[in-house]
Order: sequence, then structure tokens, then C-alpha cells
Amino acid sequence: MNNRNLTMLVDFYEITMANGFFENGRGNQTAYFDMFFRKVPDNAGYAIMAGVEQIIEYIENLNFTKEDIEYLRKKNIFSEKFLEYLENFEFQCDIWAVPEGTPIFPNEPLITVRGPAIQAQFIETMVLLTVNHQSLIATKANRIVQAAQGRPVMEFGSRRAQGYDGAIYGARASYIGGCSGTACTISDRDFGVTALGTMAHSWIQLFPSELDAFRAYAKVYPDSCTLLIDTYSVLKSGIPNAITVFKELEKAGHKGVGVRIDSGDIAYLSKRTRKMLDDAGLDYIKIVVSNSLDEFIIRDLIMQGAKIDSFGVGERLVTSRSEPVFGGVYKLCAVEENGEIVPKIKISENIVKITNPSYKEVWRLFDNETGKAQADVITLTGEVIDDSRPYTIFDPEQTYKKTTLKNFTAKKLQTQIFKSGKCVYNSPSIDEIRDYCKEQLETIWEEVKRFENPHQYYVDLSQPLWELKNRLLSEQFNT
Amino acid sequence: MNNRNLTMLVDFYEITMANGFFENGRGNQTAYFDMFFRKVPDNAGYAIMAGVEQIIEYIENLNFTKEDIEYLRKKNIFSEKFLEYLENFEFQCDIWAVPEGTPIFPNEPLITVRGPAIQAQFIETMVLLTVNHQSLIATKANRIVQAAQGRPVMEFGSRRAQGYDGAIYGARASYIGGCSGTACTISDRDFGVTALGTMAHSWIQLFPSELDAFRAYAKVYPDSCTLLIDTYSVLKSGIPNAITVFKELEKAGHKGVGVRIDSGDIAYLSKRTRKMLDDAGLDYIKIVVSNSLDEFIIRDLIMQGAKIDSFGVGERLVTSRSEPVFGGVYKLCAVEENGEIVPKIKISENIVKITNPSYKEVWRLFDNETGKAQADVITLTGEVIDDSRPYTIFDPEQTYKKTTLKNFTAKKLQTQIFKSGKCVYNSPSIDEIRDYCKEQLETIWEEVKRFENPHQYYVDLSQPLWELKNRLLSEQFNT
Repeated sequence: MNNRNLTMLVDFYEITMANGFFENGRGNQTAYFDMFFRKVPDNAGYAIMAGVEQIIEYIENLNFTKEDIEYLRKKNIFSEKFLEYLENFEFQCDIWAVPEGTPIFPNEPLITVRGPAIQAQFIETMVLLTVNHQSLIATKANRIVQAAQGRPVMEFGSRRAQGYDGAIYGARASYIGGCSGTACTISDRDFGVTALGTMAHSWIQLFPSELDAFRAYAKVYPDSCTLLIDTYSVLKSGIPNAITVFKELEKAGHKGVGVRIDSGDIAYLSKRTRKMLDDAGLDYIKIVVSNSLDEFIIRDLIMQGAKIDSFGVGERLVTSRSEPVFGGVYKLCAVEENGEIVPKIKISENIVKITNPSYKEVWRLFDNETGKAQADVITLTGEVIDDSRPYTIFDPEQTYKKTTLKNFTAKKLQTQIFKSGKCVYNSPSIDEIRDYCKEQLETIWEEVKRFENPHQYYVDLSQPLWELKNRLLSEQFNT
Repeated sequence: MNNRNLTMLVDFYEITMANGFFENGRGNQTAYFDMFFRKVPDNAGYAIMAGVEQIIEYIENLNFTKEDIEYLRKKNIFSEKFLEYLENFEFQCDIWAVPEGTPIFPNEPLITVRGPAIQAQFIETMVLLTVNHQSLIATKANRIVQAAQGRPVMEFGSRRAQGYDGAIYGARASYIGGCSGTACTISDRDFGVTALGTMAHSWIQLFPSELDAFRAYAKVYPDSCTLLIDTYSVLKSGIPNAITVFKELEKAGHKGVGVRIDSGDIAYLSKRTRKMLDDAGLDYIKIVVSNSLDEFIIRDLIMQGAKIDSFGVGERLVTSRSEPVFGGVYKLCAVEENGEIVPKIKISENIVKITNPSYKEVWRLFDNETGKAQADVITLTGEVIDDSRPYTIFDPEQTYKKTTLKNFTAKKLQTQIFKSGKCVYNSPSIDEIRDYCKEQLETIWEEVKRFENPHQYYVDLSQPLWELKNRLLSEQFNT
């Protein structure tokens, strides 16, 4: 458990609002917030949930230090009573979350928070920051892993990550999304994401010759020797020297592991490399490639018959370069007044920005014959989807588009992680999360997982939720 | 001073190489590395250096804990003597860096490290990660600030940052690049980057009506009241209600501060808002806008006569969305053998990837009449650019392109930050860095600062460096 105190990593307006709720006597009014996103990055068909374990760590460490209180006092806008409240802050909210590794879709509540307005509002920044970052990278990693068609993908991007946590949690999220490991040592130490790595060009250059450099490395790592072969010329020196050294290792009773190519035309070079290695009787030596790879380049390399055993992917994975923002939002959906839930809706001239009101749950309906996920349905909390009877889903905008599902199983996607401020959830191990992700992705149709122009997965509203939303909309637009 | 221990935030190959150098008796061989970048993000003409203070913090905290050693021991590939070396690790390198806030250009050495190969190699990951991230964001921030033409720009992106440090140091770097403040409270507490913020849509929604919500806020913050006016309809309810509340504040002897618009057509809405406020005698109320802004949208809004006093910029700043990677690299440029510097060059079939060899310095030549920077020149260390005499610079690729400078002042860009492992540099305050950045940008021609198709600033090689590079190149390609 990471015990870093990130309490003050909060948008300043969360504190001005908290003080405002407090001063207006609304601090303890129960409020309901949903975290959801509106669009999958890269126009893809699915995303991968990640970051729940870090939200838990954040909340477990939520605590205003004396220095924090002093810092806030100096702003001269917060009341002493409010500062005292912060000093004695005790988290009381209920939180439900979709488990890490779950395939997720736009507009469904991924995280739902119920609790005193002052508290449920306060955690907005960290909930969004955590889930937005890790889901972004887990999603991108999964696209890249899908492109590699079973070949291992390593995350190599620490040096180009956006800050230290970009590297650390980027490696974690990449692993959840299906990567086999990372170059980032601290993520191995702390999360058990296998770290690997051999040599940089500087290793080669530091020795009098490439052959000297290879021999020196093989001497130290006779059984885990992967040689970087593109410092001078892959074909003229890199492979011939690598073959010499691998043969020397064989004579000494060892076996080299691989070669890495980090520049040039990888399709061509990998084929030539494979042939030269095979001709030398080194068919067990693997070919690893790196150099500005992403899902599209990997797909093309494989289509062109490149001879590659595994991929190292750096900046385009760890920053999700093609689309570096996961646009999760955190919206008020209800408040309690006199013990009654009063649903809230945020309207907008931009239709996609209209929110789904009230306290809700989300269900995934699996076809019992194929095992595939057919649709997700958002319901009001308390509604039950009875999967022993046919259930009709309909598009919330084009309501004439209807499908009736039979022989299906309905599962709730969210699970409770905090109850009255106490954590009630044991985070699975990272390998469990990664396996769960892989297994759940098997339930998603290939058409939804396509890189480009994927089929849009259905996320529908239940009849009661749809009726409530329409009633609130017509009330808002008529006042 | 941040005392977080990030020693293990290191690419695993830095450790396998370190152990390899150690085992091959090369651990203490003196090596020279340069950190530089090859291309400015967004095809811009200049970048801004940032992150030096955090490199210093990292090195000051460099220290392998017992748990780190235990973790490494379990890998079963490192010798006990090497682990003992790490346990007693004492940093011994010299480091020179271009100060934070300096305008920087491709191919010049921003950071130069000299020291035992094992150590100079080890810090690669963190040097790159730190400078790549903060320079990326400082550079993007400066483009956005330039677009705003003197209007304050606030960094509002924490919730969409790539990890916690993406938010924390993103706010720091944005401030260095010219932003006026941030929404990120922890960056105010720790770095003194002014944090500001007022209310979210949820504040408005939590009250029975928008007018109630505005009044409640004004009651708590009568002298720092900025109202969010787009929850329902800017023109039909937001501004009328804001005017009501600002007038009530006036009667009570207070003055409101501003309104914020976060959606819709900002050019149109800001003009209507300005007129309605002015007609109500509220010409002192400022208009703040936010909502997916970047340098291009801000430039267009100003061109269209939008009435905006300040900008809040989020995800497109804090992730540098249009180009989220700053491609700094760290390359071996020399080693010492028998007390002599042996220059090293990395060749490549890709000409831009050929490195500049040997131990070097970089100078900026300022025209004495205009005060403008005319060119940077990379020299071998020890060369002196005598600015009392004419000096001819030439393009390192098109060598027939020459210019002779007269009446100029030559200044070295790098300053020493570590000497024999000890820090010898006092980091300036963040306000000093920000002021220095602004002042130094005044020395850069407008043509270089243009958003699109900027003039390419000259970074030339001295005659001795150029000759050395060409000699090494012809040696390499003839062997």
C-alpha cells in the first residue's frame, strides 16, 4: 500500500465549494455523483477500466496535515470552523466502482459516489485524474497488444512519460491492458510488473568495438543475453558479431536469448536477421524490435511478414500519443432532500453533454449461447433486470430501435468499494486483474474491438430511467 | 525540497549495464553524456527548458534502500559486489545544465554529465523523464500564453493529466512557461504557483435555483466572487442572475470579480456577456472562459473580437495534446582513456540521428545593437568564442551558408549544477525562473516564435567541432 498523501492534489474550486457548502449549511446534504466518459480515445469501440486500487489508496490516506491547514488559513477566505472540519476530516461516503480490467463503454457510470456533498465533491479531482490516466494507458496498451497477435509487448516508455507517475502507473496500466512487462524497475518492485532490459547503444560505444561490447555482455549474462545489433550496421556488423558471440556461448554450454533492432526498416531487417540467424543454426534466438511503434505500425509489420518475436513500445504507449486524453467527467446526478432522492440533470445545447439523472446502476447482458456481451443497460438503483424473462432494450435516442433479449444473463458491473467511508473491497493482484481483462475481452465481439470504424456497443437506458430523463428534460426546457 | 526517493525509477537496462560495467572493470571509466532533443513539438521554432530543480532533487535523494537491494538480489543476475557498490552508492559526477526558463533549440547539449560510466549511465532515465516532461509542458504553455496576447492564462488540467506528477509538475512547468496560475492546490502549496478556482456546475445544481446558488456563493465570498454562468443558459439565466447578485453585492459594499463561461460559442457569448454587464454598470466584472482551449482557438477568439479577460486551459495544455512527447535523448559523446578524452559518435542511416561527438559547450551569440539572439554555437569544451572579434558561423550541413557576426556578446548557456557529486547550484525561485523565461524570450526574434512555419534558429558547430565530427564520420563509414 502506497502511503503518499495526495489530499492537496485537488482543484482549488473543490475547496472553495467545500467551504461554501459548509457555510451554507449544506455540507452534510447527501449528494450522488457519477464518473463516466463520453468517447473512447482513438475512436475505438471499447476502453479498459483502470485505477481503482489507487483511488482506494488515495482515500485511505486522505488527511489534512497541520501544514495544509496553515496553508489554507493564509488564503484568508476559509472560516476557522471549516478548517477545523478539515483537520478532523473523516471520510463517510459510499463508493461503487467497475473493477479494474473491465471493458467499459461511453456514458455508463464507472464510479458512483454517495455521501455528504462536501466530501463527495472534494474527491472529484483525484477520482478523475486516477481513472482518466490509467484507463487511457490500459486502453492504448490493449490496442497495441491486440495488434501484436499473441507476440509479447513490453512497455518501454518511462523516459518519455509525462512525469514520474506517468511512468510508474503507466507501466501498471499497460500490464493490465495486456503488456507482458515493462522497462520501469520501480513498477516491478512495487506492483510486480515484470521488468526487463539489456543494453543501450552507449554500452556498445563504450567498448573499443561492437564485438568487444557483445563479448563483455555475454560474459556477465551468459544465460540472459539479448544483444542490440543496430549501433553501426545491422547486416554488416550487428548480426555477424552477434552470431559470433552466440556461437561462443554455445561452446561454453550457454544459450543466448535474443537480438534487438531499434532503427531502420524493421520489416526488411527482421527478415534478413531471421535468415542469417537460422542459417547459423541459431533458430532459438528471438528478435525483439523497438523504435516508435504503435498499433498501426505493428499491424503493418505483421502483415508484411516481418520476423518479430516481441515488441518494445515506448512513447506512443506511455503517453497514448495519438490521443493523450481520456475525457472522464464527474457529475452530480442526485441529492437527498428530507430523505428523498431528488434526481439532477445537467442540460446542454450539445446533446451528448446531457447527463443521465439519479442514483443508478449498470448491467451487462451476456448471451447464454455465445457467452458474448450483447449490451449494457443503465437502470435506476433498485430496478432488477430479471434474466429469466425476455428483456427489451432500446436506443435512448432512436427509441424505435429495439431488440428483445432472451436466454441471457444480467450482471451488475459495479461493486461497492467504500461503505460509510470504510474500504470494503480487496483489490485483486495485478495478475488477477490482467487475466480478468483478457477473459472479459473474450466476451466482446470482434466487431467492437476493430481498430477503425468499430461497431458501436449498445449502452441503453432502462424504461424507468429513460422516462425520468425525458420528464426532467422537458421540465428544464420549459422553465 | 522534495525528499521522495525515485532511485528505482530507472529503466532496467541501466541496472544490467551498470552491473556489466562493474563486472568488466569499466565502472569507473569516465564517460561523457549529452542530453539534447531533435525536434520542437508542434513544429514550433523554440522550446523552453524546465525540470532542472527536480533533477537536483532526484540526485540528492539517490539512494538504494535495503528493500531495493533485496529486490535486485532476487533477480539472480547481479553480483554481490555490485549490490554492495549500490548499497554504498555515492554520486561523483559533474553535471552542467541550461537553466530553467531558457529558450532552447534542437541538437544543443542541454545537460552534460561527466563521471564514472556506471553512474553517468544510471541517471539517464530520470534526467530524460524530468526534462522531457517539464520542457514539453513549459513549451506548450508558452505557445498558449503568446496566443493570449497579455491576457492571463490559468492551467486547469489536473483531472486530465497523465498521473499525479503530470498534474503537479505540469502546473509548475506551465507557470515557468508563462501561465499566471493553476487550479492545482498542491502545486501552490509546494511551489508557490498561485492556485485559483471558484465553482463547478455541481455547485449550481445542488441549490434549488441558479439564483440561489449564486447568492449562496456571494454570501461566503463577497470579495472574490466569480460566477459560472453556463449551467442552464448563459444569456437567458446565467448573466441576468449574475447581474442581480453583483448588484446586491454592490449595495452591501462589495464588488464581484468575474463570470466564467465553460461551453457554447465563446466568441458570441463573451461579446453578449460583456455588453449585458456593461449596460448594467458592471464594467469591472471580468470574463473568464474555459472549455477545450488551445493556442489556435485562443488566437481565433481574439481575432474575432471576443471579449475575454482571461483563459482557463486544461487538457490540451497539461498533456500537450497536439504533441504529447518531447523527444529528448541522452547519448554517450566521449570516454576517457589514460587521461585522454576519446570522442564518440553515434552514426545512423538517418542523418538527423547522427550525434555531435566529444565534451562540448553551447554558446548563445547576442547582437549588441538589437539585443536579439543571432545563433547558438556548439564548441568543444575549452574553445573560447572571442566576442571582441568578428566570428563566422556556418550551417553544419550546408557549409556554404556562412554569416560573420560583429558587435556581439557570447554567453555560455550551461551552468554547472553538480561538481564531484555535490550540488553547486542554488535553484532560483519559480518567479525568478518565470521572469527569466519572459526576459530571454524577448531576445528571440518574432519570426522564430511564430506558431506555424517559424524561422529556423541557427544552432551551428564551431570549426574544430565540425572538423572532428567529419573526421569521425569518415572513419566510421570507411571501416
